[in-house]
Amino acid sequence: MIIEVARLGQRLVRDDRVTTHAALVSRAFGARRIYMSEANADIRDTLRGVNRTWGGDFEVVLEQDLKGIIRRRKADLFGVAHLTMYGEALDAVLPRMARLENMLVVIGAGKVPREIYDMADYNVAVGSQPHSEIAALAVFLDRVQRGRQFGIAPPGAARRIIPSRRGKLVVDGEPSGRP
Amino acid sequence: MIIEVARLGQRLVRDDRVTTHAALVSRAFGARRIYMSEANADIRDTLRGVNRTWGGDFEVVLEQDLKGIIRRRKADLFGVAHLTMYGEALDAVLPRMARLENMLVVIGAGKVPREIYDMADYNVAVGSQPHSEIAALAVFLDRVQRGRQFGIAPPGAARRIIPSRRGKLVVDGEPSGRP
Repeated sequence: MIIEVARLGQRLVRDDRVTTHAALVSRAFGARRIYMSEANADIRDTLRGVNRTWGGDFEVVLEQDLKGIIRRRKADLFGVAHLTMYGEALDAVLPRMARLENMLVVIGAGKVPREIYDMADYNVAVGSQPHSEIAALAVFLDRVQRGRQFGIAPPGAARRIIPSRRGKLVVDGEPSGRP
Repeated sequence: MIIEVARLGQRLVRDDRVTTHAALVSRAFGARRIYMSEANADIRDTLRGVNRTWGGDFEVVLEQDLKGIIRRRKADLFGVAHLTMYGEALDAVLPRMARLENMLVVIGAGKVPREIYDMADYNVAVGSQPHSEIAALAVFLDRVQRGRQFGIAPPGAARRIIPSRRGKLVVDGEPSGRP
């Protein structure tokens, strides 16, 4: 499954840290790319640095026309899931997504235009309480992939972590047996 | 199960938005309280406003001695789970938590002192890639409660959402049949 994320409507610089979290979560939960508008271009560099250290080729794509991205991915037969507290319950939607091959996940920072609700194939509520688009994205990607994203080691890592009960075990390079 | 969250080491004002997300996620995912140090006291007011509108009595507790909180909750037989990318894999830890009655979840913003790793009953990695303590908290609470947190309507809500495929359906008050 190819997963992409689009983040709509970043507001001001105060959101930069939240925007970085959205990109890092997209990468760590198996998406190949995040599209965002109005973001500080430093975020691209931050994520490139993360790729160099921890592997993979996750991309930050700065794009003003996010509606154009949604239209293009619908034409490519991606399922478009817009995460909103007003949507259908996650448990109700997940079975209908089981056959999707590829997915574009749309998250909003602040008010999302009505048109997005209409364009989306699924408006999905990760709970019907206000919380965080970062949290919603993470839980949604975890549920859609049934946790399998955590078993995948991004290729080309300079460092990787050995899970540990108490310490911090970090080793160089990739798991043995890989190129 | 009683769940509490402690957030360590907020840095500067630039993290305020992230701190608010951490509190909102704690509330929306069924915790009764978040302890935090060094946070802007406005966050308390923000969360009180959220309670008034959306129900429940979630608390933001400003507390400098977070190690003291951890010690006290250990004495109360809460399981203390520290979320860190260096910890044991979530899937490996969850079965060992099945019998816990109450839980304190510790999340860090930035570097966490070594002592916390030793104090925690569980150091848990929600994936071994860098991402977001907000995302880690949400996925952890979702997995621990097996999604049941989304089925609970906080009491005393002034408004609630009716899940919807395309629109925003918000009604006054609580579900019928409740006091």
